[in-house]
Amino acid sequence: MSEEGGMTKKRSEDFSNWYLEVVRKGGFMDQRTPIKGFDVITPWGYSIWEIIQKEFDAMIKQKGVQNAYFPLFIPESLIKKEEEHFAGFRAEVARVTDVGGEKLADPLIVRPTSEMIMYYMYKLWIRSYKDLPLKINQWNNIVRIDTKVTKPFIRGREFLWQEGHTAHATKADAEEFLHKIIGLYSNMYELFAIEGLKLVRPQHDTFPGAGYTVVFDTLVQDGKVVQGPGSHFLAQKFSKALDVSFTDEKEQKQHVWQTCWGMTTRQIGILLMHHGDDKGAVLPPGVAPVQVVIIPILFKGKEEIVLEKAREIAKKLKARVYVDERNHTAGFKFNEWELKGVPLRIEIGPKDIEAGHITVVRRDTREKIQVKTVTDVEKMLEKMQHDMLEKSRTFLKENIRDAKSKQEAISAMAKGGFVRINWCGSAECDKSLKKETGGEIRGTLWGKKEHAAGSCICCGSPAKHVAYAARAY
Amino acid sequence: MSEEGGMTKKRSEDFSNWYLEVVRKGGFMDQRTPIKGFDVITPWGYSIWEIIQKEFDAMIKQKGVQNAYFPLFIPESLIKKEEEHFAGFRAEVARVTDVGGEKLADPLIVRPTSEMIMYYMYKLWIRSYKDLPLKINQWNNIVRIDTKVTKPFIRGREFLWQEGHTAHATKADAEEFLHKIIGLYSNMYELFAIEGLKLVRPQHDTFPGAGYTVVFDTLVQDGKVVQGPGSHFLAQKFSKALDVSFTDEKEQKQHVWQTCWGMTTRQIGILLMHHGDDKGAVLPPGVAPVQVVIIPILFKGKEEIVLEKAREIAKKLKARVYVDERNHTAGFKFNEWELKGVPLRIEIGPKDIEAGHITVVRRDTREKIQVKTVTDVEKMLEKMQHDMLEKSRTFLKENIRDAKSKQEAISAMAKGGFVRINWCGSAECDKSLKKETGGEIRGTLWGKKEHAAGSCICCGSPAKHVAYAARAY
Repeated sequence: MSEEGGMTKKRSEDFSNWYLEVVRKGGFMDQRTPIKGFDVITPWGYSIWEIIQKEFDAMIKQKGVQNAYFPLFIPESLIKKEEEHFAGFRAEVARVTDVGGEKLADPLIVRPTSEMIMYYMYKLWIRSYKDLPLKINQWNNIVRIDTKVTKPFIRGREFLWQEGHTAHATKADAEEFLHKIIGLYSNMYELFAIEGLKLVRPQHDTFPGAGYTVVFDTLVQDGKVVQGPGSHFLAQKFSKALDVSFTDEKEQKQHVWQTCWGMTTRQIGILLMHHGDDKGAVLPPGVAPVQVVIIPILFKGKEEIVLEKAREIAKKLKARVYVDERNHTAGFKFNEWELKGVPLRIEIGPKDIEAGHITVVRRDTREKIQVKTVTDVEKMLEKMQHDMLEKSRTFLKENIRDAKSKQEAISAMAKGGFVRINWCGSAECDKSLKKETGGEIRGTLWGKKEHAAGSCICCGSPAKHVAYAARAY
Repeated sequence: MSEEGGMTKKRSEDFSNWYLEVVRKGGFMDQRTPIKGFDVITPWGYSIWEIIQKEFDAMIKQKGVQNAYFPLFIPESLIKKEEEHFAGFRAEVARVTDVGGEKLADPLIVRPTSEMIMYYMYKLWIRSYKDLPLKINQWNNIVRIDTKVTKPFIRGREFLWQEGHTAHATKADAEEFLHKIIGLYSNMYELFAIEGLKLVRPQHDTFPGAGYTVVFDTLVQDGKVVQGPGSHFLAQKFSKALDVSFTDEKEQKQHVWQTCWGMTTRQIGILLMHHGDDKGAVLPPGVAPVQVVIIPILFKGKEEIVLEKAREIAKKLKARVYVDERNHTAGFKFNEWELKGVPLRIEIGPKDIEAGHITVVRRDTREKIQVKTVTDVEKMLEKMQHDMLEKSRTFLKENIRDAKSKQEAISAMAKGGFVRINWCGSAECDKSLKKETGGEIRGTLWGKKEHAAGSCICCGSPAKHVAYAARAY
């Protein structure tokens, strides 16, 4: 599933085709399926997803979230109950209209998200304040037939994700919990070695039906932005539409306060676009399925001693390690693991054994370093993780540009990255900005109030927000 | 999601409603969704599935199987390519005929199983003998709109499963690998504390398109049989239909030999039906999400000392443990954990602390035992697992009855369990047996040749097989 031969495209020349080549040659995804936008996540790509699942799943369980599984299909009559919500997905839904050859009276919608089916059950489950908070998560598949150009992981028509949905007795409790979840996504971003900008989306661009939405907007190397995990404060919008209510301690009926939050397989695409280089993928140790690959350099008569040493080192390493004993040349293996983005490569030959050192090559800097012990190798992983995150932080910092006027915004936007502006808050100004600069308003900083002095760069009226605009995927 | 109040139904009186009550009151599944047969696997039920996943996933990865993810939809034109295969599912498929309001030229089938879409990709991936064996597994959701009466976990219209699909260069390699997988399912059955009968299905009842099929047929307490994991030797049926081929070492084109094998969330229903008692579910320690629940018995003024002790024991236990500190009476908690089937319950009160012992209650035997150390508790878990498996073995042994004639078969079938007969091998005799006894031929023993002497009990012609018949869900 991964192709032979090295990379031919360069990021700086053709980012789009460079990305497609990274995905294909590294064996992350195969798009050659019979249905456009329904791709195969091949084993190497899927194993990153497994690590993301394992890490995030442990974190949410610690916060008292339980996993469950809800139906794939939602009756059309049910999903239409919250109209604003359905309007956001109407154009993208796949409908099952017949079953075993017979027409259905009420067609079934393949879930584009599970609010309606989950809250239908929440209504049955929640009676008293004692049933709250209810904190449930699903790991499942989602279908949204987006008609825009598909891009592996970044924009597909089916994707995998987790969707967490909680119900609380009070607004304060719901928001407090949502902020914890945003903290967990921050932890994930540390594993990704990515500094994302946490933004509160403009009201006119929030998740259909949400009170407010906080996203991890992530810069990639062509200067565009990709949306990462989204955390939504739903307030009582759904609970009122579906009458999800409880009796409080004073015997009063109340509607629950809700949150939902999701992270998808798009994250794999973000990792590749953010960290990759002209040799292929570069995976941060935090989420690399293989953190260290050991390649035995075999010479006639010395095969056994080299293999033994390779296996010995593998055994001692606490990291996720793979000894590549396949019947291929060392050069072939170097190339393949470089394409796949494995953080550290150990090369072991008879000379290394004689000298008593371990030769390690770092995937990101391509430095070749000789160390003494297995502990040194573990330390290199830590250092690489740290360095990659620092690099990401610098990259973000260097790519936020202030613009005091529309003219400045146009030239700043041409450089890529975020453009920081004063904004009145209106959807019209966002629209006109988009028209003239190609970039849209992504939101205002979350958790850090920035004071807007002066006037909106679009309409000149007094600014209400310091906003971040960018071109986005 | 779990109901208050104990069980009201008895296995011996009304097995079917007893089962529904176990499922509902234990919080395993909720069927009150808006679509029949599309149920919610609630957190307690889902956490059993997570343990099954974790255990089996580790086993198959050790055998070199990799996980991946393939599309949910299969174009109707593709799935029809292997006609015999599609015929087996035609009546059960859900079809997506329109997307975003627009009609599709080639409708999409929601996967009832993934052979066709996976092997479509295998054809692209497999070129040379060096690409073989290819061993891929998926954990996903499946839709089969079975029109029979639905039963939680046992017969639903959507279920979760793993489907493993391998391709090999030779018949021998494929079969050898399939036998390893059957060994892994045997390991899983040990965790389930269930003795299943491994049967080769009669040719006329194999998986559509398969060479032969080995299943774990499992007796439940009403004497009926439920099909467990199925392992299919596909031979070259699909590889010839889809031209999945490779160039062998002699530069000759060959079609691959294939296997597929699956285990579903039905397993949770089997566990409940096999082990449950009139107090609710009884989970074997091997797959219990909580193996030991600790219930502090609180008396005024002694709360802290008791809670401290409870937490201390929990910390020392290597088992999956939960300290139930919720604000409920001890009686309420006893009942709830009994319904949920937690193997061991520890009750800790001031007297236990004074006496220096730990009071443990076994869920299966309901014995109350006082032990000295945490290690003793771990040993009780092992013993319970062992005892439950032994009980299951005895149950199976006692429920295999020989029948030398149709008359004997009728009375044996009325007793429940398996009826062992001489059989000529024809589908007609199976049919007539079913008509007269209500039981069908489930297959012949796998991995152990039994010599058939005498004549078929149905038609009198010379017997070819010693077959096992039973009434089945």
